[in-house]
Amino acid sequence: MADAPLAQAPLQSEQLRNMDRYWRACNYLSAGMIYLRENPLLRKPLAAEHIKRRLLGHWGSDPGQSFLLVHLNRAIKQRDLNVIFISGPGHGAPATLAHSYLEGRYSEVYPDRSETEEGMAQLFRLFSFPGGVGSHCTPETPGSIHEGGELGYSLSHAYGAAFDNPDLIVAAMVGDGEAETGPLATSWHSNKFLNPVHDGAVLPVLHLNGYKIANPTILARIPHDELEALMTGYGHKPYFVEGDDPDTMHQKMAATLDRCLDEIQTIQRNARTQGVRQRPRWPMIVLRTPKGWTGPREVGGHKVEGSWRAHQVPIADPATHRESLRLVEAWLKSYQPETLFDASGRLVEELRALSPQGTRRISANPHANGGALCKALDLPKFQDYAVAVKKPASEYVSPTDVLGKFLRDVMRRNMTTFRVFGPDETASNKLTAIYEASKKTWLAETEESDADGGELSIDGRVMEMLSEHTLEGWLEGYTLTGRHGLFATYEAFVHVIDSMFNQHAKWLEKAKRELRWRQPVPALNLLITSLVWRQDHNGFTHQDPGFLDVVTNKSPDVVRIYLPPDANCLLSVADHCLRSRDYVNVIVADKQPHLQYLDMNAAIAHCTKGIGIWDWASTDQHAEPDVVIACAGDIATMEALAAVDILKGMFDDLKIRFVNVVDLFRLMPDTEHPHGLSARDFDSLFTTNKPVIFNFHSYATLVHKLTYKRTNHENIHVHGYAEKGNINTPLELAIINGIDRFTLAIDAIDRVPRLRGMGDHAKEWLRDQKIDHLNYAHTEGIDREEIRDWHWQG
Amino acid sequence: MADAPLAQAPLQSEQLRNMDRYWRACNYLSAGMIYLRENPLLRKPLAAEHIKRRLLGHWGSDPGQSFLLVHLNRAIKQRDLNVIFISGPGHGAPATLAHSYLEGRYSEVYPDRSETEEGMAQLFRLFSFPGGVGSHCTPETPGSIHEGGELGYSLSHAYGAAFDNPDLIVAAMVGDGEAETGPLATSWHSNKFLNPVHDGAVLPVLHLNGYKIANPTILARIPHDELEALMTGYGHKPYFVEGDDPDTMHQKMAATLDRCLDEIQTIQRNARTQGVRQRPRWPMIVLRTPKGWTGPREVGGHKVEGSWRAHQVPIADPATHRESLRLVEAWLKSYQPETLFDASGRLVEELRALSPQGTRRISANPHANGGALCKALDLPKFQDYAVAVKKPASEYVSPTDVLGKFLRDVMRRNMTTFRVFGPDETASNKLTAIYEASKKTWLAETEESDADGGELSIDGRVMEMLSEHTLEGWLEGYTLTGRHGLFATYEAFVHVIDSMFNQHAKWLEKAKRELRWRQPVPALNLLITSLVWRQDHNGFTHQDPGFLDVVTNKSPDVVRIYLPPDANCLLSVADHCLRSRDYVNVIVADKQPHLQYLDMNAAIAHCTKGIGIWDWASTDQHAEPDVVIACAGDIATMEALAAVDILKGMFDDLKIRFVNVVDLFRLMPDTEHPHGLSARDFDSLFTTNKPVIFNFHSYATLVHKLTYKRTNHENIHVHGYAEKGNINTPLELAIINGIDRFTLAIDAIDRVPRLRGMGDHAKEWLRDQKIDHLNYAHTEGIDREEIRDWHWQG
Repeated sequence: MADAPLAQAPLQSEQLRNMDRYWRACNYLSAGMIYLRENPLLRKPLAAEHIKRRLLGHWGSDPGQSFLLVHLNRAIKQRDLNVIFISGPGHGAPATLAHSYLEGRYSEVYPDRSETEEGMAQLFRLFSFPGGVGSHCTPETPGSIHEGGELGYSLSHAYGAAFDNPDLIVAAMVGDGEAETGPLATSWHSNKFLNPVHDGAVLPVLHLNGYKIANPTILARIPHDELEALMTGYGHKPYFVEGDDPDTMHQKMAATLDRCLDEIQTIQRNARTQGVRQRPRWPMIVLRTPKGWTGPREVGGHKVEGSWRAHQVPIADPATHRESLRLVEAWLKSYQPETLFDASGRLVEELRALSPQGTRRISANPHANGGALCKALDLPKFQDYAVAVKKPASEYVSPTDVLGKFLRDVMRRNMTTFRVFGPDETASNKLTAIYEASKKTWLAETEESDADGGELSIDGRVMEMLSEHTLEGWLEGYTLTGRHGLFATYEAFVHVIDSMFNQHAKWLEKAKRELRWRQPVPALNLLITSLVWRQDHNGFTHQDPGFLDVVTNKSPDVVRIYLPPDANCLLSVADHCLRSRDYVNVIVADKQPHLQYLDMNAAIAHCTKGIGIWDWASTDQHAEPDVVIACAGDIATMEALAAVDILKGMFDDLKIRFVNVVDLFRLMPDTEHPHGLSARDFDSLFTTNKPVIFNFHSYATLVHKLTYKRTNHENIHVHGYAEKGNINTPLELAIINGIDRFTLAIDAIDRVPRLRGMGDHAKEWLRDQKIDHLNYAHTEGIDREEIRDWHWQG
Repeated sequence: MADAPLAQAPLQSEQLRNMDRYWRACNYLSAGMIYLRENPLLRKPLAAEHIKRRLLGHWGSDPGQSFLLVHLNRAIKQRDLNVIFISGPGHGAPATLAHSYLEGRYSEVYPDRSETEEGMAQLFRLFSFPGGVGSHCTPETPGSIHEGGELGYSLSHAYGAAFDNPDLIVAAMVGDGEAETGPLATSWHSNKFLNPVHDGAVLPVLHLNGYKIANPTILARIPHDELEALMTGYGHKPYFVEGDDPDTMHQKMAATLDRCLDEIQTIQRNARTQGVRQRPRWPMIVLRTPKGWTGPREVGGHKVEGSWRAHQVPIADPATHRESLRLVEAWLKSYQPETLFDASGRLVEELRALSPQGTRRISANPHANGGALCKALDLPKFQDYAVAVKKPASEYVSPTDVLGKFLRDVMRRNMTTFRVFGPDETASNKLTAIYEASKKTWLAETEESDADGGELSIDGRVMEMLSEHTLEGWLEGYTLTGRHGLFATYEAFVHVIDSMFNQHAKWLEKAKRELRWRQPVPALNLLITSLVWRQDHNGFTHQDPGFLDVVTNKSPDVVRIYLPPDANCLLSVADHCLRSRDYVNVIVADKQPHLQYLDMNAAIAHCTKGIGIWDWASTDQHAEPDVVIACAGDIATMEALAAVDILKGMFDDLKIRFVNVVDLFRLMPDTEHPHGLSARDFDSLFTTNKPVIFNFHSYATLVHKLTYKRTNHENIHVHGYAEKGNINTPLELAIINGIDRFTLAIDAIDRVPRLRGMGDHAKEWLRDQKIDHLNYAHTEGIDREEIRDWHWQG
């Protein structure tokens, strides 16, 4: 279908003039933030003492971002649109801050930065100043859900925000720097997962600013037809707005934005009235403008506008060099601030009229303060999914299989506010029951054979793409706009999103502790499964339980780690996590069939405490034990229990206390983590002087990291993954890393003083057991059925 | 330029027939690995007892990979090419193993799997068997430098291998699953960094296998023109080979491969004779074949060939279901093994003739055992770059600036075997001197203004792209093929490649410990800079020193961490790292100007020990001290020294011992890490009972993780980053995290028993100092020049 040509000059001359003035006001404020500490409206000749002592901030991408924002405002007003803006280019906060300030929103949130001359001066002073406002779109920025401190996630955040928000348009400005990152490069394909009926729209605007910190960008330096092909290949219909003459560019941008919004409207209307016939080719815009547009063209003989030299502070030394001072003054005056702001320092009335009102303002859109819109999930009673446990450790059940049924019904009750995410692994992770409630979102092509078990649907709510980055970004965008979700992923590969986790935790920390105006958002729930101990044929590459180390470095305010030992505990933990706010909850639970220990009531009691003695597995009769056997993690628990069984059989008067940890932060002192145990409680569990054999799911040192201050720490002996593995049977892997029942039993014998003399024979037998099993595992051609089921679970 | 049509039938009928037979031999072996433990050549009717007890492995992508390998062999022989193969699709090892076995290479490396019937049986048995061979292209696989256990890095590894190997062609099979990952999606742009004169060629073959574990792939489900546009947009010239009829496909593939190799040859010849006039549009191939091609079409009423059901084991239960057994037998027999292997079980002579000879075999190409080709770097004398230090702590120098000059000359002396990598940050990280030796590789478009400081060159050896994933992948590929490099990156964002680091460390661990035939490869050197403590305007998002926690989880055999306190120590450490093999070396050093402490001789002595007492900063006169002040990291060291100065001024008889740590693993016990200190040495430094105030660069708990077994551990009090930050001055950030001089001094006063009574006044003064500085930092409009230079370094 050939498109009609774009309108040549959609803007009337006065409208054009005012939009350009508004844009100049944005640019003036952006530059002012970087330079001025006094004389904000240049009512006096600019003098050295008006200049900040240290110039910090990023000018380069501001004018382009403001340009888009001005045009979005026009469209919002004209069409009464519901729009949020994602600022991808990282260091471009001045543009967003200026826009928010001009809309009056900034002063509502921060009254000290009022719409007055003094308020403007304060806005300028606090920018990039200690204790002040950052140069990214930090959580402090009204209207922001995307900081951009680490690059690459603008598009995935945008799509996350758009899912299940049918009336929302997310304008996502993609920096051409961040476009080089892997996460961004694949997130373009998110358009295969956006449903035009019940989701909103994403309008990507690739900003070809041309340069990064010190280099040209790749996408700005490939031929036009290659770039067009790339965007077409990503499934978009690209429109190009390119140039540097403001008037021409305003007309082009207005016409293009109108076209794109018309197309979005047409796509949505058609889909919503006639159903989805094929994947829409959503429009996107390539906006090519000079870096540092409207800034100084040349400084000291070097090109600045349209160069990487415009990235940060274009003129370095106005406070000390008179000529530079004059350059800065001339640049700032070129925006004619005296025509933009009135006597009080407020934006003049005719420009104020260009801004949308109330919550239609991008800076005040409630979707960007998602907690304000958030409704609690309607959760089924998790107890109804309980596994019957008549006798502990008598039956095998896959914990995630049980969880899947619960999640299925969570999905059914919350068909617009809950989604499940996973990289092609939802089935592999045994969460298959979810498909009974909703299939996998898929708007790419289908084939006849998909009907047989493909579980694909254009209306699906299970999000599967082989990109942990995109999934995590989607979920972050989804929760930051007030909705709920869970991301299930292979344990080893959750490291792929280490840095995204770090950044999200930092956002939550700031929002929660320092910004009362930000409402709490749903927790980001990470289910880590396909665990290290069950990589029977994947081997060494799939063995890394170290994500927990990364998590424990983040603020205790916002991170939680749970290691439910069985399916009922997993249910209890999952219910708790789905109700929580402003956390990242990390749940570690394997997908393979495992022994079950606690009935539902016991599981709830245990998970509520987060740590506790299992009397039925202990032999200390509530008296002082000879040894504490402790554990955290499903497989670690099974081996620890088996060790207790062995020890019981060998030494019938040995007093063993069995402690299981679900909530890992219980191990920390209560002075350091809100979930921490007091010294007294910890000591009452772990004693002050008895040996503790601790079998841990992950790397052993993490337990030491959490417990090193405890009274009895020197007697805590931790067994965990020791970075030894290959193609192994589960027991073999346990043995070579020393978390197996035999090793634990030997360790206990060695640590209990009164056993030391009498344990030699027992230890020899235990060592033989290990050797037997290793030989057995490696014997070619043996009948594997003969091996005990815990040895080689399939 | 219109291309001539491809040859219709380049293969003569006998050649076609034999290539197809060779391919069938590959497929037979691949299926055999999954199913058979006995009767490898089906000389007896297939019986249940011949079937493995547990069926593990991945069939889906094997036939497509083998198909390419057979065709590569033809081209290698015909054109005498030097080719290595990168297997991107993860679980596709049977194809690579089969190919290696048929070339005879496998039996050379593993004589127990000889080219006999018994050897074949052993090949089958050990595949995906405990203690045996993995289902990825693990380090055990001859000819592999790319395991594929974690997806996404095939192309970046391929380019890394091709750099500076002008005669090498790297055939990189990209799985359509991994193509969805972020790292893979952006790594297509690597073609803007490949120089046709002095680099080799990469031939990407995108394998549209159609399915992942349980889903169709995105790229297989977009229209043909979209996919073509995408590949064109990535800068390639795509050729499509699509179908399922073997004979037709052989002809198409042969013709297409010939065309691609001709084009590669033309590109290289033109560039090498006439210079590089423009970025070449390198050819690439889209190979669309059914998943599990030639396998069972249908099993139990479900489509298998051409479906996700072919991903792993297509027929699940032949040992227990007679009908399934017959299906497996029929499938295996369809390859006619009796016509492919001779009486001894060896590939028949006319097929053996299809394989290249010696090191031309893909499985025996020395580039895939890069240590064998590796030459030591010709290093300049690092002492020549020393900073003169007449008096400790008297002058400010940027450590990375000094390092840059050394690296410049390393580059100059090793212009074909050394590269430096960094994400648009080489200049920001103050390594600018390198550009004097070599500029930044850039084959995308250039503009006139680039001449002014752009530092771009088609011949550049400094690799800058805003993708940490691609850079890390390039460097891994470069070192695994025997060359040297260093990757400098912002500290917070090294977490982006946590998982790539994990995988590379695992590869090195296996290769080093278990595979004597793999020669040691150059270390992968990571320089972490732009550190947490100097994020004056980047703020909280740029503050994460936790990569070291990830590193310490890996095997002590392969990881090293250095925190040189000043420029001379950094030089000594860098020299050491550039000489080392089979490690990941992590060097932590800031880019800002810092105080210098050690002259070159002292620096060498200190770095050689890795940890030591600085007598000039101590007051204990080699006697038992009252307190040990210890530190690791440049900024931590500065604050610790300042604390000592304060304490000296306050208590002139206080005996302080000052210990600095360069080599972090010195803190570990020698029983656990080869660099660890013995208990005796540790105790002699840190005493057995005196308070130790340890100022640490990173999160404090890491020091506890390394030292919890030490005698004096309960007296070690660590200060480190506590996840508190914003836009802060350096001292302010130090204070709020408690690593500042004042906090350290207070802590020392509190911990030294004899100071407790007399220190109250001193502590009050120190607390006031902190408050003063915090107020000062936040005072609006103050003359920042007045602040001491260590307070707000720019």
